[in-house]
Amino acid sequence: MKALKGNIIFTASSEKFEVYENSYLVESEGTIVGIFKELPSHLKGIEVDNFGDSLIIPGFVDMHLHAPQFQNMGLGLDEELLQWLEKYTFPEEAKYSNEQYAKRLYTNLAKELWRNGTTRVSLFSSIHRNGTEILMDVVSRAGIGAFVGKVNMDRNSPDFYVESTEESLASTEEWILATKDKYNLVKPIITPRFVPACSVKLMKGLAKLSEKYNLKMQSHLSENESEIQWVSELHPEFGSYTEVYDGMNLLTENTIMTHAVHNTPEEIELLAKRNVFIAHCPNANYNLSSGIMPARKFLDAGIRVGLGTDIGAGHQIGIYKVMSRAVQSSKMNWLNSGKVERCLTMSEAFYMGTKGGGEFFGKVGSFESGYSLDALVIDDENLGDRDFRSIEERLQRFIYCGDDRNITKRYVAGKLLSEPV
Amino acid sequence: MKALKGNIIFTASSEKFEVYENSYLVESEGTIVGIFKELPSHLKGIEVDNFGDSLIIPGFVDMHLHAPQFQNMGLGLDEELLQWLEKYTFPEEAKYSNEQYAKRLYTNLAKELWRNGTTRVSLFSSIHRNGTEILMDVVSRAGIGAFVGKVNMDRNSPDFYVESTEESLASTEEWILATKDKYNLVKPIITPRFVPACSVKLMKGLAKLSEKYNLKMQSHLSENESEIQWVSELHPEFGSYTEVYDGMNLLTENTIMTHAVHNTPEEIELLAKRNVFIAHCPNANYNLSSGIMPARKFLDAGIRVGLGTDIGAGHQIGIYKVMSRAVQSSKMNWLNSGKVERCLTMSEAFYMGTKGGGEFFGKVGSFESGYSLDALVIDDENLGDRDFRSIEERLQRFIYCGDDRNITKRYVAGKLLSEPV
Repeated sequence: MKALKGNIIFTASSEKFEVYENSYLVESEGTIVGIFKELPSHLKGIEVDNFGDSLIIPGFVDMHLHAPQFQNMGLGLDEELLQWLEKYTFPEEAKYSNEQYAKRLYTNLAKELWRNGTTRVSLFSSIHRNGTEILMDVVSRAGIGAFVGKVNMDRNSPDFYVESTEESLASTEEWILATKDKYNLVKPIITPRFVPACSVKLMKGLAKLSEKYNLKMQSHLSENESEIQWVSELHPEFGSYTEVYDGMNLLTENTIMTHAVHNTPEEIELLAKRNVFIAHCPNANYNLSSGIMPARKFLDAGIRVGLGTDIGAGHQIGIYKVMSRAVQSSKMNWLNSGKVERCLTMSEAFYMGTKGGGEFFGKVGSFESGYSLDALVIDDENLGDRDFRSIEERLQRFIYCGDDRNITKRYVAGKLLSEPV
Repeated sequence: MKALKGNIIFTASSEKFEVYENSYLVESEGTIVGIFKELPSHLKGIEVDNFGDSLIIPGFVDMHLHAPQFQNMGLGLDEELLQWLEKYTFPEEAKYSNEQYAKRLYTNLAKELWRNGTTRVSLFSSIHRNGTEILMDVVSRAGIGAFVGKVNMDRNSPDFYVESTEESLASTEEWILATKDKYNLVKPIITPRFVPACSVKLMKGLAKLSEKYNLKMQSHLSENESEIQWVSELHPEFGSYTEVYDGMNLLTENTIMTHAVHNTPEEIELLAKRNVFIAHCPNANYNLSSGIMPARKFLDAGIRVGLGTDIGAGHQIGIYKVMSRAVQSSKMNWLNSGKVERCLTMSEAFYMGTKGGGEFFGKVGSFESGYSLDALVIDDENLGDRDFRSIEERLQRFIYCGDDRNITKRYVAGKLLSEPV
């Protein structure tokens, strides 16, 4: 057993922050036991890491990141989605057939995740099985919790970056068997890229693999208007993009659908019924001129929403930066909706980036009893006077103005992470 | 004479970047002489600062920053403009009657400006003459070029933070006389806060002081819908917010008007006719739910547009971060306008944050001959592979993904700046 001592703040619900000033966060074997202002007599004498006036917050959860696009961050952002994929993304991802390249770049990515306090992440790898296993090794060694997906693509893809349906399904199953029980905190996830790049046979085959091995799934949905138009041309037999995935058995309570910028009320209803997770990636939606995701509509429909960096369309690794961007975006939705769709509050954005996305990983993202001790220590001394600021204001200031230098410790499942090498 | 050697990139016009790889930027007495691939024979032997594979770019120009709101960065952003002013801004600015407080906080601000490569800035101070002079001293000692304005407010302001019309005009004139010839790179600027806080007599008196002493001017225009409504109620005798300022003789080619989020075509025409500068502050416009400033409309009207951080409504000191935000904003304008108003390109946003705003300061913000040598050295080694990236791509990556750690040297008028103390 162990305790972290400091100013503890988290969101058990999205409505408000829970604050425990100068208190003890006690864990046993990586799981939270409770929060105490003073240690009760039976806990006296346990190891205490005292972080003084620092903040202690849950680790950040990134629901959507393309690991092999790390080198492309901040590049090509004068393009929209489909052109950007052709010109920047596919050529870069194709390089991950080279194992040396994969190892070097994935290690750099792991360092950036560590620096920025991402403790759980759902990753897209490339179509390469070997590269995907290298990514799993790297992330596992870094101590970060992750779902990692070998990407599947068997149509409408460049000659240099495509698989046949059969080899895609076969190599995916081999990869699942090789990795599903290999790591403690890193697991395979079924990852059809998106409808335009996956045949019906491939998508249905992947859904079957998910069922056979009880695996989670992730894909993209309704990011860009041209993409949606393309899907409707490819699949006139379905009423919507969402219905295509549903027809392939890919929409379940264990599925993340990313973006959801442009969906009809009927699609939102179907997503709610299937109880999928939505990964909201505001930076990427701005950068590729996709639009503003109407987060409030999804929340009002009872849909679980987390945050994603969407590297490389998104340009910032820190989920705290995505939180402030999500709030900014929601303010434009409020204006565009004639002041009907309420803005996201800071606590709602924080919840999305911790417990909201964390639910996909289990009991993750909160400091309630029974949750995994995934925590960050935030030293905000350089961000301005602290004495007359509330803990909540200090957290808000870190989210808006802080960076990785303010994050001084990272814990996952109770384990202190050192910088990946 | 001296030369900086490296990969030189800047925008002489907004349409494109000028790139000189591995070249010499030669200055004499703080003014740029030229750029050379090899030093011509008459320049052989001058001092060369060789920055290897680093980028050399113009210093950043911030057209709008409230110095006494520095402590409020990232706070109170669940409010709109008028409520935010009451609850957060005025109480904080009032503290700057305390000279110790002013000195400590303004020094912290100067450090952040230095760190983030802001070499020229137009500052709002508070209503306090002494605090304003402290700010001028601090900024001048830091070597940063600045216009600094004592703020004027004589109506609709809280009891604890307001002046009478007479004392406002009198103390402004005393302050002008005390400071107009005191510094080399720091000058006073006439600064009525905004129409709601300034009587007609005050605004007209300030315009006269501007004329009498040949001073520049700055204020706020059409940030928020409630503010605009308030102005129309205060001044039914004028047809628009812009016409109020014009009626007070405050719109000249030496005036910065900040925000301009909501203006009619007639107002834009008037602003163009008066040849004012517009300070575009996208972060602040998001954070206070003000709206998206239609930058393309202003550019199409031939209006000079620069960028502003608008600390404390804006939460980021780095103008490079405002550049990426301006591009992101313009993409939403493109969508909202039915894909009519073209997005800002990276070179347009860079131009705004260097030469565009720089024109307000003289020959500033470009590396053409005759311009002030205001320059930054950017070491982007940590931002990803450089070998197969163009200089333009590397600059774009710094703008989107870099931070103050990438800025290794700052020059203003040829002088290397050391960290303010």
